[in-house]
Amino acid sequence: MAKDVTTIPYKTYLTEEEMPKQWYNVRADMKKKPAPLVNPGTLKPMTAEELEGVFCSELVQQELDDTTPYIDIPEEIRSFYRMYRPSPLVRAYCLEKKLDTPAKIYYKYEGNNTSGSHKLNSAATQAYYAKNQGLKGVTTETGAGQWGTALSMACSYFGLDCKVFMVKTSYEQKPFRREVMRTYGAEVTASPSDTTEVGRKLLEEFPGTGGSLGCAISEAVEAAVTREGYRYVLGSVLNQVLLHQSVIGLETHKAFEKIGVTPDIIIGCAGGGSNLGGLIAPFMGEKLRGEKDYRIVAVEPASCPSFTRGKYLYDFCDTGKVCPLAKMYTLGNGFMPSPIHAGGLRFHGMSPALSELYDQGLMEAVSYEQTEVFEAAEMFARVEGILPAPESSHAIKAAIDEALKCKETGEEKNIVFGLTGTGYFDLVAYQQFNDGTMTDYIPTDEDLEAGLAFVPPQPEE
Amino acid sequence: MAKDVTTIPYKTYLTEEEMPKQWYNVRADMKKKPAPLVNPGTLKPMTAEELEGVFCSELVQQELDDTTPYIDIPEEIRSFYRMYRPSPLVRAYCLEKKLDTPAKIYYKYEGNNTSGSHKLNSAATQAYYAKNQGLKGVTTETGAGQWGTALSMACSYFGLDCKVFMVKTSYEQKPFRREVMRTYGAEVTASPSDTTEVGRKLLEEFPGTGGSLGCAISEAVEAAVTREGYRYVLGSVLNQVLLHQSVIGLETHKAFEKIGVTPDIIIGCAGGGSNLGGLIAPFMGEKLRGEKDYRIVAVEPASCPSFTRGKYLYDFCDTGKVCPLAKMYTLGNGFMPSPIHAGGLRFHGMSPALSELYDQGLMEAVSYEQTEVFEAAEMFARVEGILPAPESSHAIKAAIDEALKCKETGEEKNIVFGLTGTGYFDLVAYQQFNDGTMTDYIPTDEDLEAGLAFVPPQPEE
Repeated sequence: MAKDVTTIPYKTYLTEEEMPKQWYNVRADMKKKPAPLVNPGTLKPMTAEELEGVFCSELVQQELDDTTPYIDIPEEIRSFYRMYRPSPLVRAYCLEKKLDTPAKIYYKYEGNNTSGSHKLNSAATQAYYAKNQGLKGVTTETGAGQWGTALSMACSYFGLDCKVFMVKTSYEQKPFRREVMRTYGAEVTASPSDTTEVGRKLLEEFPGTGGSLGCAISEAVEAAVTREGYRYVLGSVLNQVLLHQSVIGLETHKAFEKIGVTPDIIIGCAGGGSNLGGLIAPFMGEKLRGEKDYRIVAVEPASCPSFTRGKYLYDFCDTGKVCPLAKMYTLGNGFMPSPIHAGGLRFHGMSPALSELYDQGLMEAVSYEQTEVFEAAEMFARVEGILPAPESSHAIKAAIDEALKCKETGEEKNIVFGLTGTGYFDLVAYQQFNDGTMTDYIPTDEDLEAGLAFVPPQPEE
Repeated sequence: MAKDVTTIPYKTYLTEEEMPKQWYNVRADMKKKPAPLVNPGTLKPMTAEELEGVFCSELVQQELDDTTPYIDIPEEIRSFYRMYRPSPLVRAYCLEKKLDTPAKIYYKYEGNNTSGSHKLNSAATQAYYAKNQGLKGVTTETGAGQWGTALSMACSYFGLDCKVFMVKTSYEQKPFRREVMRTYGAEVTASPSDTTEVGRKLLEEFPGTGGSLGCAISEAVEAAVTREGYRYVLGSVLNQVLLHQSVIGLETHKAFEKIGVTPDIIIGCAGGGSNLGGLIAPFMGEKLRGEKDYRIVAVEPASCPSFTRGKYLYDFCDTGKVCPLAKMYTLGNGFMPSPIHAGGLRFHGMSPALSELYDQGLMEAVSYEQTEVFEAAEMFARVEGILPAPESSHAIKAAIDEALKCKETGEEKNIVFGLTGTGYFDLVAYQQFNDGTMTDYIPTDEDLEAGLAFVPPQPEE
């Protein structure tokens, strides 16, 4: 049971001086850039003016900038980051021992803040720019609730109104999430709701629906554009979000430098791609510049398999079709993930930047069913002492599988994964797992066809 | 909103090499020692042999040892500690700014592990010694659930059965706590239960009772002594627990050395005294040895005010009167805290060591009503980004009050408090607070008299 003190500590923290002062913009190093957002009416790339009706001006600039590799992090945001960052890079000694693997397993742990996840990195940034622009408030959607909680925290810190549309399934499964957001002063509405046109329409068509991220996005956008002094903010998918989340990867990269280790495999769970895109950013940069090579693995739920079973197409990001079109791996804006699926990673699409990188063969993707994901979660919790979020547990499962392959081959690979958050609000799912009543739903080919039925006309490229 | 980078970081971590290798036993520096545990039958001090029927042998030695100042932490426990320690000493820059106080506020944050509190420090230790002694399992009680969760985690790591009696009020208010414990493989029973004699008796007498820590202790002790290969473990009150928790204070002391700061006021919430006793240990040692002086403040709920309204007497630690007698500040083993009271800090007594220190005038005590405690909790959450446990929020409230006094006087005092844990499982209480329906119950003098009605005959000293 004992473990000798080794030269590599259990946890590696950067000092506050070593924390990143700039975000890294991976698009700057991509020869073929991600496809631009497109106006669904004209099928032409969205202009800054068009986007500024929905998003804060500074964030629009970041969204469109695919040439500047490093962008300064304003001091106010660095100050906010210091409240809960740097996050530790943890060596999973106990998991390695449990698996009896020669692999070295590391994880970057983003759960040490009350929002329970990495989402706070972008929430703080977007709230800051909204405040700076003199706005009154922001609207958003949340699925599992991590993004909504993060944004509520950020808005209460910077003094902004915060209106959250929460996917109905999650709203019902996670009443306590709502209370955390309320404690931070946010207004939370179950989506679809009767407070927006798009919500009322959907409720009429599907009265019993548990909602979807796509629908909650439509409601939040409508609530923003019909209100003076409000803008819409999004916690994933967008280029700006991946930019903000690059702090995860930059800290990870520097922590590995400090301990003199180079990772071989980098693993992250992928819903809209915010965590994965952030974690891999500087490593992908090295790969794009031909300086180093890494295996990079995206992990997604078998019940919502955008990368592994989706199509690379222009599609709406929302169900109500009020958003611009994005070229991405998508299951179609008509796809509704099964309510059996716990936690996040329920979005029908995927970050356009990651989609392009995946299409270029620069990263792999794999999918898992939720019961095997919870088995990995339980094993991890019991030896590493952290109850992981279901989302993060997808990455745990993939890391365990890679470590077990190393056991077969005897290879001492360095594996790192993103432990994006904690499972404190996922106990209904853990209870199902503990009771042995957890199942999963894998979409049939017919389900996937139905999801793609509403894909819009494709712009010329 | 901006905050310049100062020489004192937001968070100070020790390196793993700097982490304590020995616990500090404050009793060794006390001239007048805490009163010994006494056999309720003979009214003589409990012998090691008598105690070993209930507790692990090594822990009995630690319980009785009031002369050895430093006790080695076994490597296996230090290894477990490295999984989630060192914990950060945080400078509360944002809270200071919010209060506009010249005081410097620090907190030692113990919530960065899944048990959500400092309890894991002693749980790991007790589980390790039980395993080392070749036991099959341990039994315990839990109130708010933090101790039970911590023990479940420790038992799953060291491979021990874990049977938890959870105070019924908490069991019902916190169903998710049960699921975390189950995920870690523990068996959880609501107390009082019909699985023990003492539980059945109490249920007959008070069919609608919400239970109490005192009753759950009786049940857990009965379950341990009537089972082959089991011992009982306790998460607070005992000398051994304060010894293990001294890691909190030792880390805090060294972190202050690193940043060149000496605290003026040290504040901790107090239920049974495990966190407070651990946090203050090395500082109290300096005070006892006449090397330094500090103001040390215990904070308790007005609804369960052992220090501020209790008597310093020999009393049972449990309602069923199966435990040894301890001399402590007590509300009487017949005292049942109101179910209106949220969270922990519900024990009728107080650590005998802290009781003796308080009686000698070496520390102060103050009590607060829960509504004002939640106001402090919400303010803290909004500016410092951590949703605090109700228990910890008592210390926050006292720290805020001290900082506001500094604002009046202009003094730049250094205030440190123990932020023992997170409020993820206290959202029912937060909801009451958010809805404005939270109240409190302050015991009347008659309630206190009734609580003391069952105090046993006092041994001669």
